Amino acid sequence: MTASSFSDAFPNSRKVTIEGGRGIRVPVREIVLSGGEPPLRVYDTSGPQGTDVRQGLPTPRLPWILERDVDRLPRSPAAPLPSGSGDELIPEGLRRPVFRGRGPVTQLHFARRGEVTPEMEFVALREGMSPEFVRSEVARGRAIIPANINHPEVEPMIIGRGFAVKINANIGNSAVKSVIEDEVEKLRWATLWGADTVMDLSTGKNIHETRQWILRNSAVPIGTVPIYQALEKVGGVAEDLTWEAYRDTLVEQAEQGVDYFTVHAGVLLRFVPMTAKRMTGIVSRGGSIMAKWCLSHHKENFLYTHFDEICEIMAAYDVSFSLGDGLRPGSIRDANDEAQFAELKVQGELNKIAWKHDVQVMNEGPGHVPMHLIKENMDKQLEWCGEAPFYTLGPLTTDIAPGYDHITSAIGAAMIGWYGTAMLCYVTPKEHLGLPDRDDVKAGVIAYKIAAHAADLAKGHPNAQAWDDALSKARFDFRWEDQFNLALDPVTARAFHDETLPADGAKVAHFCSMCGPKFCSMKITQDVREYAAALEEKSVEFRRRGGEIYVKQGQEA
Amino acid sequence: MTASSFSDAFPNSRKVTIEGGRGIRVPVREIVLSGGEPPLRVYDTSGPQGTDVRQGLPTPRLPWILERDVDRLPRSPAAPLPSGSGDELIPEGLRRPVFRGRGPVTQLHFARRGEVTPEMEFVALREGMSPEFVRSEVARGRAIIPANINHPEVEPMIIGRGFAVKINANIGNSAVKSVIEDEVEKLRWATLWGADTVMDLSTGKNIHETRQWILRNSAVPIGTVPIYQALEKVGGVAEDLTWEAYRDTLVEQAEQGVDYFTVHAGVLLRFVPMTAKRMTGIVSRGGSIMAKWCLSHHKENFLYTHFDEICEIMAAYDVSFSLGDGLRPGSIRDANDEAQFAELKVQGELNKIAWKHDVQVMNEGPGHVPMHLIKENMDKQLEWCGEAPFYTLGPLTTDIAPGYDHITSAIGAAMIGWYGTAMLCYVTPKEHLGLPDRDDVKAGVIAYKIAAHAADLAKGHPNAQAWDDALSKARFDFRWEDQFNLALDPVTARAFHDETLPADGAKVAHFCSMCGPKFCSMKITQDVREYAAALEEKSVEFRRRGGEIYVKQGQEA
Repeated sequence: MTASSFSDAFPNSRKVTIEGGRGIRVPVREIVLSGGEPPLRVYDTSGPQGTDVRQGLPTPRLPWILERDVDRLPRSPAAPLPSGSGDELIPEGLRRPVFRGRGPVTQLHFARRGEVTPEMEFVALREGMSPEFVRSEVARGRAIIPANINHPEVEPMIIGRGFAVKINANIGNSAVKSVIEDEVEKLRWATLWGADTVMDLSTGKNIHETRQWILRNSAVPIGTVPIYQALEKVGGVAEDLTWEAYRDTLVEQAEQGVDYFTVHAGVLLRFVPMTAKRMTGIVSRGGSIMAKWCLSHHKENFLYTHFDEICEIMAAYDVSFSLGDGLRPGSIRDANDEAQFAELKVQGELNKIAWKHDVQVMNEGPGHVPMHLIKENMDKQLEWCGEAPFYTLGPLTTDIAPGYDHITSAIGAAMIGWYGTAMLCYVTPKEHLGLPDRDDVKAGVIAYKIAAHAADLAKGHPNAQAWDDALSKARFDFRWEDQFNLALDPVTARAFHDETLPADGAKVAHFCSMCGPKFCSMKITQDVREYAAALEEKSVEFRRRGGEIYVKQGQEA
Repeated sequence: MTASSFSDAFPNSRKVTIEGGRGIRVPVREIVLSGGEPPLRVYDTSGPQGTDVRQGLPTPRLPWILERDVDRLPRSPAAPLPSGSGDELIPEGLRRPVFRGRGPVTQLHFARRGEVTPEMEFVALREGMSPEFVRSEVARGRAIIPANINHPEVEPMIIGRGFAVKINANIGNSAVKSVIEDEVEKLRWATLWGADTVMDLSTGKNIHETRQWILRNSAVPIGTVPIYQALEKVGGVAEDLTWEAYRDTLVEQAEQGVDYFTVHAGVLLRFVPMTAKRMTGIVSRGGSIMAKWCLSHHKENFLYTHFDEICEIMAAYDVSFSLGDGLRPGSIRDANDEAQFAELKVQGELNKIAWKHDVQVMNEGPGHVPMHLIKENMDKQLEWCGEAPFYTLGPLTTDIAPGYDHITSAIGAAMIGWYGTAMLCYVTPKEHLGLPDRDDVKAGVIAYKIAAHAADLAKGHPNAQAWDDALSKARFDFRWEDQFNLALDPVTARAFHDETLPADGAKVAHFCSMCGPKFCSMKITQDVREYAAALEEKSVEFRRRGGEIYVKQGQEA
């Protein structure tokens, strides 16, 4: 499985960079058009191309990180660790120095001090916003820039409802399937098509090594659910989990460079019985692990009781929180229930603690929610969680279409994105059925790029409409090649066209296979325009002769 | 291209009939489940199976039609007609007697007289509503039952916002592609997967014959856009169209049994210049034909000036109006503009005229609309069009994803369905690129079944939630076979599962490929339920001993 190249995926596109202060260079994709149309520049997540996966990507953030108050630790994350992970699977080229802040080194910390970091400048250029707006949104906790100081390969991006809606793609091996190289290829493939962040949800063998390969080859932020690896360390037995094993895992992953952690600290002991009468109980893996632990020990969730210590670790590396929704509904029937909202309220309390420690935080949301109950999720999250960014999985708007949950959920995702959700976690066609392959990852990413862009349009993001306009104009002008090249997926658009009209001549023809050459509705518009122009001329002539029509005020009604 | 059989498409499903009065038998699909679960009955559009396409379907409506005040005409629709269509392509088995009402024979006519027709009883059983509710909705013009007296093969269905949201699939050959048999196969294929009505949009050769094959093999209502055939009759030159040519086409199609006509009577001469400054002008074929005619003759649209006569024809066969939106937007940029809404207002006036003639009517709507502008379409249609059913094409919520417009539009379709749209016209992945093939038709139908069902859930349709519940419960119980069989597309769901875990044993396994056998979040719920039960027991014991906790009123706050 090798990823298609940038040029195969996006014909007539080229990477250009926008230059900012401090040597900042933001990559964008420029789509070159015909017919005298100006090129269109679009947001680009594909990262540096043509690199060797055994050497990893360049590290443009390194100089910025070195300017901060950090210690270089006397070891590399590839060295043996408390977990017993070996390093034989990590080539020399994928090892990096490891840093830790002497105090908080988070974007929130700098934003609150009034400082515009290079990362903020980068995202400002990328989003077309002012650096000061970026800083103030981060300072208020309304946006996060997930960028661990040990992930110097990152091209910074921002998650917040004042910015373009982002999408996340999940990858990761499981006990049943997958190998390291496949996961790196999935990462490159997902970001080629537009994933803004990637979560590595590996649960099988070689978790540490897989993650090292992914991080060193990723220009997008990487998220994880550390409890998965902690569970592996205690032999897969939830009751055997300890705070110490979890803490060591956090440090291990923070030193590798993970940019955000899903932490299920809101699954409290007293909420667990609320799920007993549900149609589908607890469906979040992290949530059920913690529920099991709480019940076994009859103790409060150690992620909750140790939350301050977790914050201290995350502050020292600038790992952002993605506070997990371990009690999210797993079916339409269970949407918006007591358990779900009890946890959301606790997420809001935890946000405040994270902010106290200068740690960036976003909140995870559902899941499975029928359309009429979606807005309530957004409203409550805004109210209870102090406007921290919301990051939802879908939501799926019906449960009757396994095999098509990229569509059932793109509907919910587009809606909640419009309502204010900052990042949408993709769902692939394989959801509930199996592990996504290459085609599924692409199908999930494209469905979610559609949802995110539809949300940007509805929110009135200043850059969104230009893309639709460029494509609509190309369509109307019968510039077929431009129409393909402007598509989210140019390869598929062209292939579909060519199934009916494969000849090259058809791509310059002023008709298409729907109506055929004899009659075309779009051609008629030319007549309409001539007619309207003639009417206008008549009217000018009328006014030139001094004629006027008077209507008294109020007479029209 | 042969359609899969019902049993291949829906394993463990069987057709059963619900019996009503007057010998009415409504087919439903019953999905047989395991684990002691009761079977689930779902709405079925697949029609009689195993029939010979050269003989057509049975004609269950014939006795009902004969009881009405109708004349049998002295010719068959297969006989030579004014258009010059020959009948050599129509086998003997596809010929039927032709009827015409002596006066209005419409469902609206009978509903207004307080009469519950067999068709109304049929749809009442089918929807799980009372016959009287069906009658009153039809009488008020809030719902239509499209069922031409010359289409005795129809299994009646209802379109109205008090009922399940319906979907339409477009088929039809064009000057560039398609043959008759392919279109009949597309019809059977589309209805197998769930199309509630089918529109035959043929524009090429043999329009009349293709339609005859389709009608005689269709248990769902068939819609057409008669101006397409009228245009063929005048050599494809819009300015040569005449009222007479159009009128003869209406009669020809009404006598064949077409159930609803798209009529672009709201495209008025004075609205045409409003489209001159649009990004994409006029994109409706019918709309642009009429615009061209109006401009060429500088006369008002003859569909508007002859609207009463059109109503008289349609009343005599019970053909329903689908008032076209010839000025619908063709791009996000043009959504909700002056031209679009000017036409919608005229549609509202025309509804009143149709109702005066006892003709059933629905209104067509857009098109391309960003999410934040969708609701305005529904609100205005309800207000201006007297609550007649709304029938929209999508709408597409962004223009940047050719190749995926089934998804860009399923988002808009689900939303507008929730807001009150009664029928959603599907969009296939080939939209804007080419003619849909078999796979595209299925992809479009499934995406729209998802949108319609999501809308039914959000509207609180009484039957909708049961399907989601049955599937969610099967998922939670690890009844894999049931989960596949309950899916909208069982074949795909099973295939996706088997890609990762093909062994038969995996289909009874209490785990799946996502987490593997060692840890499964769903298994933990059993522990939660035992814990909750133990808590409950403790609490009962506490109360049994006479213990009680008193809380004074108001003290909790």
